Amino acid sequence: MMSAVKLSQIYEPVQEDLLEVERDFQRLVESKRDIFPELHQMLKHALTGGKVVRPALCLLAGRCYKYNREKLLPMAASSELLHIATLVHDDAIDHADTRRGRATINKLWGLDKAVLLGDHLFARAGEFAAATENIPVVRLFAQTLQIISSGELKQAASAFKLHQTFDQYLERIAGKTAALMVMSTQSGAILGQAPPEGVHILRDYGYNLGLAFQIVDDILDFIGDKAEMGKPVGSDLAQGTITLPSLLLLERYPDDNPIEKIFNGRDREQNLGRAIDMVLNSGIIDECYKIAADYSAKACRDLDKLPGEQGRRSLVALAGFIIERRK
Amino acid sequence: MMSAVKLSQIYEPVQEDLLEVERDFQRLVESKRDIFPELHQMLKHALTGGKVVRPALCLLAGRCYKYNREKLLPMAASSELLHIATLVHDDAIDHADTRRGRATINKLWGLDKAVLLGDHLFARAGEFAAATENIPVVRLFAQTLQIISSGELKQAASAFKLHQTFDQYLERIAGKTAALMVMSTQSGAILGQAPPEGVHILRDYGYNLGLAFQIVDDILDFIGDKAEMGKPVGSDLAQGTITLPSLLLLERYPDDNPIEKIFNGRDREQNLGRAIDMVLNSGIIDECYKIAADYSAKACRDLDKLPGEQGRRSLVALAGFIIERRK
Repeated sequence: MMSAVKLSQIYEPVQEDLLEVERDFQRLVESKRDIFPELHQMLKHALTGGKVVRPALCLLAGRCYKYNREKLLPMAASSELLHIATLVHDDAIDHADTRRGRATINKLWGLDKAVLLGDHLFARAGEFAAATENIPVVRLFAQTLQIISSGELKQAASAFKLHQTFDQYLERIAGKTAALMVMSTQSGAILGQAPPEGVHILRDYGYNLGLAFQIVDDILDFIGDKAEMGKPVGSDLAQGTITLPSLLLLERYPDDNPIEKIFNGRDREQNLGRAIDMVLNSGIIDECYKIAADYSAKACRDLDKLPGEQGRRSLVALAGFIIERRK
Repeated sequence: MMSAVKLSQIYEPVQEDLLEVERDFQRLVESKRDIFPELHQMLKHALTGGKVVRPALCLLAGRCYKYNREKLLPMAASSELLHIATLVHDDAIDHADTRRGRATINKLWGLDKAVLLGDHLFARAGEFAAATENIPVVRLFAQTLQIISSGELKQAASAFKLHQTFDQYLERIAGKTAALMVMSTQSGAILGQAPPEGVHILRDYGYNLGLAFQIVDDILDFIGDKAEMGKPVGSDLAQGTITLPSLLLLERYPDDNPIEKIFNGRDREQNLGRAIDMVLNSGIIDECYKIAADYSAKACRDLDKLPGEQGRRSLVALAGFIIERRK
């Protein structure tokens, strides 16, 4: 509960407009109620319960400069819809049953409809991006979708492969998470008519924040409890995905490592439990937090060059929040 | 073979630029050869062997006005990539094994990677659309993707439902096929700086051509032979999709209809053969061709109001070609 309060404090300079973004989503959901009840239900399920971090990033970046509400609002909506579209496809591909403690779209409506709903959400995100009528922002949107889908393809190609480097991990999470946060902050800066240096600083903020965010996500997959996380602990390893904690575990114990056995399908449950225990009892989690904190600090290093104290202060607070969050 | 010659004659006024679009695709494929071999192979497979009807429509529409090659080329590429992206997702969702006589992406690389490749192609299509730097065209692109994905969702929702009306069928094929052809011709007109009436006429051309095109596709699913079509005959019915021939068959024989038995899973193979025979021996195919020809004629009805005789003549010829084609 403490986290939730804190997040709403961080969002305070853009709170009214974040509510407006959520009203946009409600209108989108309601517009289908009579004409296409099944799509209405699917949209309602998919658009409920997010932390709206990406819209907040977009609006706060815009808050640092000329706050152009008419253009920032559709782009904030676009960033969240693009995020949700990728989650819907991810869950479908991973055959995941739960997300944020609720059944996934593919669990409730089947894989086929999850693919189509994801496509529908990509399209809606594209429409909102186009509504900014800003060509560099539209190009950024299309490039971001391309980076994300390439990243997902790379993740699929590297599944169940033991030998991965820290750089490969970084490249993967850059595509998977940081690219979308870059889109949020960079588009906010562009729409706020920031000068090139300001766009650059906010772009770098989004990138480093995204890396820190995903590293913490990957930590939480090991230390979170199922009820709080809304998904099973160790789900990354179970799906053959090496993340930072397992990368470090493999480095420390190259011989007789339970991860190898998990990937080979030998006593999976038992070895998964063993891998989690080894990570928890090795100081690896502290090391991961240290790396996440470094990226979080890096995100903030040039923020004091920006105008717009309100937006800047919230961006700093958000960088602190994301490495302290518990879900 | 006769058809192939004819198509190249129709494309003649834009033949050089169609080859340039195909070179764009080759460059896209080659750019991944070293850095991501698997994506290279998937792209190569997906981007081989299309009829490039949609790029031709875009370029020919532009040919009727101010032929702005720099902007028409990326939009022509975008329309084909969007088309291929939807095919890749369709095949994945339908678990189809073959398309155009070749194994599908999902058959070769699995459903998960087919979903991700489709997303990647959506993104690429979006990048090409954004490269036009024309906001109305970018919005049209996003709206089109939205219409297509809604159409696919509606098709999924109506699968294995017997009682469908002609209007519901039209609505479905409008979303599935006509929307993309509208995007091609309308964007060509906009980029050619056509006046509003010209945009309207070319938009209507694309819409009616799309309906005629899909009706012929649906006919060919009954009368084509497997080798020529590159997919099994009767595949729509087998997947629970009612198209115009089966709609008319249900109207004529409301009682004791084999389609009902197919949808209920009773002696599927035998009843599928019976349904196909009944369609072929009932004059229904002629009736379907008549309806397709009406839409084809409707597509052309206002073309003589357009300038640019070369482009116009090819559009008329294309409307004739698509109702005579055999695959």
